[in-house]
Amino acid sequence: MNMNNLGIVKRTVVRADKAAVDRLAHFGVASIHEAMGRVGLMKPYLRPIYAGAHICGTAVTVLVHPGDNWMLHVAAEQLRPGDVAVVACTTDNDDGMFGDLLATSFRARGALGLVIDAGVRDVKDLTAMQFPVFSRAISAKGTVKATLGSVNVPVVCAGALVNPGDVIVADDDGVVVVPAAIAQQAADAAAAREANEADKRAKLAAGVLGLDMYKMREPLEKAGLRYVD
Amino acid sequence: MNMNNLGIVKRTVVRADKAAVDRLAHFGVASIHEAMGRVGLMKPYLRPIYAGAHICGTAVTVLVHPGDNWMLHVAAEQLRPGDVAVVACTTDNDDGMFGDLLATSFRARGALGLVIDAGVRDVKDLTAMQFPVFSRAISAKGTVKATLGSVNVPVVCAGALVNPGDVIVADDDGVVVVPAAIAQQAADAAAAREANEADKRAKLAAGVLGLDMYKMREPLEKAGLRYVD
Amino acid sequence: MNMNNLGIVKRTVVRADKAAVDRLAHFGVASIHEAMGRVGLMKPYLRPIYAGAHICGTAVTVLVHPGDNWMLHVAAEQLRPGDVAVVACTTDNDDGMFGDLLATSFRARGALGLVIDAGVRDVKDLTAMQFPVFSRAISAKGTVKATLGSVNVPVVCAGALVNPGDVIVADDDGVVVVPAAIAQQAADAAAAREANEADKRAKLAAGVLGLDMYKMREPLEKAGLRYVD
Amino acid sequence: MNMNNLGIVKRTVVRADKAAVDRLAHFGVASIHEAMGRVGLMKPYLRPIYAGAHICGTAVTVLVHPGDNWMLHVAAEQLRPGDVAVVACTTDNDDGMFGDLLATSFRARGALGLVIDAGVRDVKDLTAMQFPVFSRAISAKGTVKATLGSVNVPVVCAGALVNPGDVIVADDDGVVVVPAAIAQQAADAAAAREANEADKRAKLAAGVLGLDMYKMREPLEKAGLRYVD
Amino acid sequence: MNMNNLGIVKRTVVRADKAAVDRLAHFGVASIHEAMGRVGLMKPYLRPIYAGAHICGTAVTVLVHPGDNWMLHVAAEQLRPGDVAVVACTTDNDDGMFGDLLATSFRARGALGLVIDAGVRDVKDLTAMQFPVFSRAISAKGTVKATLGSVNVPVVCAGALVNPGDVIVADDDGVVVVPAAIAQQAADAAAAREANEADKRAKLAAGVLGLDMYKMREPLEKAGLRYVD
Amino acid sequence: MNMNNLGIVKRTVVRADKAAVDRLAHFGVASIHEAMGRVGLMKPYLRPIYAGAHICGTAVTVLVHPGDNWMLHVAAEQLRPGDVAVVACTTDNDDGMFGDLLATSFRARGALGLVIDAGVRDVKDLTAMQFPVFSRAISAKGTVKATLGSVNVPVVCAGALVNPGDVIVADDDGVVVVPAAIAQQAADAAAAREANEADKRAKLAAGVLGLDMYKMREPLEKAGLRYVD
Repeated sequence: MNMNNLGIVKRTVVRADKAAVDRLAHFGVASIHEAMGRVGLMKPYLRPIYAGAHICGTAVTVLVHPGDNWMLHVAAEQLRPGDVAVVACTTDNDDGMFGDLLATSFRARGALGLVIDAGVRDVKDLTAMQFPVFSRAISAKGTVKATLGSVNVPVVCAGALVNPGDVIVADDDGVVVVPAAIAQQAADAAAAREANEADKRAKLAAGVLGLDMYKMREPLEKAGLRYVD
Repeated sequence: MNMNNLGIVKRTVVRADKAAVDRLAHFGVASIHEAMGRVGLMKPYLRPIYAGAHICGTAVTVLVHPGDNWMLHVAAEQLRPGDVAVVACTTDNDDGMFGDLLATSFRARGALGLVIDAGVRDVKDLTAMQFPVFSRAISAKGTVKATLGSVNVPVVCAGALVNPGDVIVADDDGVVVVPAAIAQQAADAAAAREANEADKRAKLAAGVLGLDMYKMREPLEKAGLRYVD
Repeated sequence: MNMNNLGIVKRTVVRADKAAVDRLAHFGVASIHEAMGRVGLMKPYLRPIYAGAHICGTAVTVLVHPGDNWMLHVAAEQLRPGDVAVVACTTDNDDGMFGDLLATSFRARGALGLVIDAGVRDVKDLTAMQFPVFSRAISAKGTVKATLGSVNVPVVCAGALVNPGDVIVADDDGVVVVPAAIAQQAADAAAAREANEADKRAKLAAGVLGLDMYKMREPLEKAGLRYVD
Repeated sequence: MNMNNLGIVKRTVVRADKAAVDRLAHFGVASIHEAMGRVGLMKPYLRPIYAGAHICGTAVTVLVHPGDNWMLHVAAEQLRPGDVAVVACTTDNDDGMFGDLLATSFRARGALGLVIDAGVRDVKDLTAMQFPVFSRAISAKGTVKATLGSVNVPVVCAGALVNPGDVIVADDDGVVVVPAAIAQQAADAAAAREANEADKRAKLAAGVLGLDMYKMREPLEKAGLRYVD
Repeated sequence: MNMNNLGIVKRTVVRADKAAVDRLAHFGVASIHEAMGRVGLMKPYLRPIYAGAHICGTAVTVLVHPGDNWMLHVAAEQLRPGDVAVVACTTDNDDGMFGDLLATSFRARGALGLVIDAGVRDVKDLTAMQFPVFSRAISAKGTVKATLGSVNVPVVCAGALVNPGDVIVADDDGVVVVPAAIAQQAADAAAAREANEADKRAKLAAGVLGLDMYKMREPLEKAGLRYVD
Repeated sequence: MNMNNLGIVKRTVVRADKAAVDRLAHFGVASIHEAMGRVGLMKPYLRPIYAGAHICGTAVTVLVHPGDNWMLHVAAEQLRPGDVAVVACTTDNDDGMFGDLLATSFRARGALGLVIDAGVRDVKDLTAMQFPVFSRAISAKGTVKATLGSVNVPVVCAGALVNPGDVIVADDDGVVVVPAAIAQQAADAAAAREANEADKRAKLAAGVLGLDMYKMREPLEKAGLRYVD
């Protein structure tokens, strides 16, 4: 086992099953996160650069040094159609590591979007391109190309562990990571979860209370809830 | 006097006078806050989930535990047409406590919107529903239903004291609380304040300086302001 | 030399050359910042109040006390067509120091926009007016007119030094300060930088990798990058 | 009812019963907060300026404007032996509003300490005086004396509602507010709570597990906890 | 593979080799982190509750729900002599989840300390006990015992991945995680690194410049550094 | 005029008059800041790494790239007895850029301390050495030596402009910058300010109110202060 995760590019990635990824694309981040047992979410400080941005693809992970986007160029070569670049940084950093040129390159490689625990720039162009990006900041601050990081090693991005090949789903509510090995299972669970949402919504719209629909009155009483006037 | 505000639901709320609430709906949050003597604002970290969101209604207050939205279901039953749910949490928490199902239920009860010192999710759906929400975060993070809080007790929400029945006005500039007892008085003051804004705006647009319109030159000089070249 | 920068208004400002300002208006903030050697950026917490806001003009600087917007009225008189008000505060403060009345007055004076290291309000009106503002917060919180600051002294605004007359360029990516004395030089450098972007974009869109286009493979290898399977 | 809480000094305060205050001084903040049902805590960003600082006294409340400590001088006159000054600000502000001169004056009036949702300075002197202060910041930033606030009105300080006369207890763990009307009741509850802590501590020190001492195994099993190897 | 990491307690943990742990105890966190190639650090917001706190032991991981410390009681039973409890939370939370009673229990089990990405309380008592704790906050806020988390699953704590059995080293500079499989290798590297520090220190104290000692003059010149007068 | 401040080392610095520096060493940061008219303070997030740390010396400025401490080695050579290294970063960064080896080197050069808008490490050793450091963070995170910054150019450090040769005074209350040209004048003003503090303290200790000592009753009444019972 090598002690050092820096300075390496892993070319072989076992990507999640394409059929499972395609199914997951139909569900919202909140549903998938709930379906997996409320795990796998990145922290909510990651926000889309434009409303309605949506990504569902397989992760190519990138580990970068603060103020340095060299490895994003290295990562471009590893991207395949259907991939999502997931960029973690060795420390908190808001610099604008990604802009419209890299987006053009990533798209040419077939990448679907970017999730980055750092900053991005050229957001007007990225929006015009409809290239979806979820970032911790928008910043014009330029970066250097001087220090090695890695590509396709396991990373912690915005508080969540991401292994190369995992499914990344991102929408207005945030970003969730689905481990490749359970992508199909998570899609099943999300489907089951959403199946009866329409029915619930109709009942609630008709005035049925969640208290009754979810049978909460008895457990609330047992927990000691008191009604007073 | 009971020491403990947790675990109770107060069913009787003296809501602010409807006529006063209707009048307050015509004024901006900044004007109302100024009219009341610059008090009553919630902290500016509360932001609307979509531009143009607007609420003016009477508060049903909810006190919740972090990571737990059980009391929102209890609160639904206490909502009446014209109410606004105001959710405070016993500690800072960004979890997504509210989504489109609860919004459907709240709307069915006649609620006009939500002010929550925590997170929300399903923001795409909430926006499509045009259900106005002011929150501290957007987060897909799910919550449990395990611990009691309270409904319709006085709460501190985003730094402001809210009593059930108070008027809550929220727009792009923030959220202000108008105590029920002074709602009419606040509406009068806001109306007086806005009455001469059109006149001021016209003067300023014509090139009159605020220095002259507000007669500031003398007090500035007395305060010691020096002009140099 | 006077020790105290507070309580003075400097009426004479050497503004950057108009032709240079006009040229800088054609470039993005990121390009200008890069062209100047990656300096001059304000911190990324300054954000536009509406997407697409853009400013390029000469700075009239204002130094204010927290919770006090008196000097903004003093500054209005010093604004000339093509100016941008740049407001620094003696301490971190989010209060809503600027709204639609001041915007009306500033516009009547010919000002192009506002950059403020504090809060603003009436954002709905400001957006309707298409008056571009970059601020650290949106807040309805009102301010007093009681304490002197200064106009047209050097200020540090959001981490960047601004001298009166400097060029301020702001767009979706942030705010950059171009010292008046190098405005022409910065425009030249930005033009040179953007000149070959179209070519680069075309190559990247065609699938050429940055690794090859920027000849990075050799320096990466020298730095020790290892490819593994 | 007056709409405006600014610009008034209430001279008559109903302070909590002295005997109850004296009893509360024997308990930790955590115990009192638990004894009251987990309410009344100020936010944890308030920190003591030196380790071991402790306060237990009755609140004289002060509402100030950011960057302005005028009302602290007004408040000094309202302080009586056994009081604690509790300073809230109309907006977030870190300026150094309080230093060794005010501490000398407050102590001369019999005040026991200060809780301030703003900054303080002269911390070396305050520490030498052993004048306990809990603040949100330490800052040398000076303040003006230009804008009115109020003394002895209800305030929200660091997220907690404080009425004049309430008991304030502060130690290394934070600051808790005990409403005057329930001071005796809270002291009883805290005493009851601490009574069996020694016994619990002895058991735990002897190796008894909380799982057994608190009889948690059955509820954990019911909740679905699974042990795996 | 199970999708859900919540609600389970893994009793079997492969702990890092004791000899390696003992060796790592002699090195500082900064040295170990450097020796591993600058990886494995938790974020710097984790701070010791008293100066000089030091921990070196094997991780028992705990995943908790915000505002809920139930799993800490479950974890106590899994602690063995030489262990360190490492507590991650499913969301950002500052509540005081740990105090002197749990510390007494943990110590009785042989635990050496606590690393917690949440808050703690009773810090006066914990300091008196010299029970080392590294936390993100100090808060008197009490917690409930209502929702399951897990023990001895992989967790992300303060931005770092921790597997049960990994070595945790914490000192005034922060907290580092050494994967169990490379504990010996990391100790070797740290030893090598510290071996020549005394020599370097002596040279620097004698006035030798790092520029010369590290032979930086040539690379600096190549990078383009210019000396001007 | 050169557009680019990066990559240069200015060897010639006009340092503030030594006699003035020596006088300023007798005054607190708060007094000096007040004496200069309430300007020149760095932001209060800079904190000493140990209580009682004190610095008064002339600035050698350093501008660094995030995660890169190369220029600190370059700066060492420019330090003279009585200097203080003042480190600004091109972006917010908490990495541990400075430790005991650099402190040994800086001290050998005669430097009195460090003010750094980034992180430091080896705080236990620095404290043992009594080498005073004011930083924004403590972090074990290591840095690279790859990217040029500058030495002895004007920098903005923690919100304050610092020119090489300016006087830097730092104590428990924060850090203040005194421009070299007004060092004597600032010392005079600080001396005048402190001269009557002892008298004021004595009066306040004797029970005289600030309201009377500062003759505030009349202006408060004019401002509209109302006393009520």
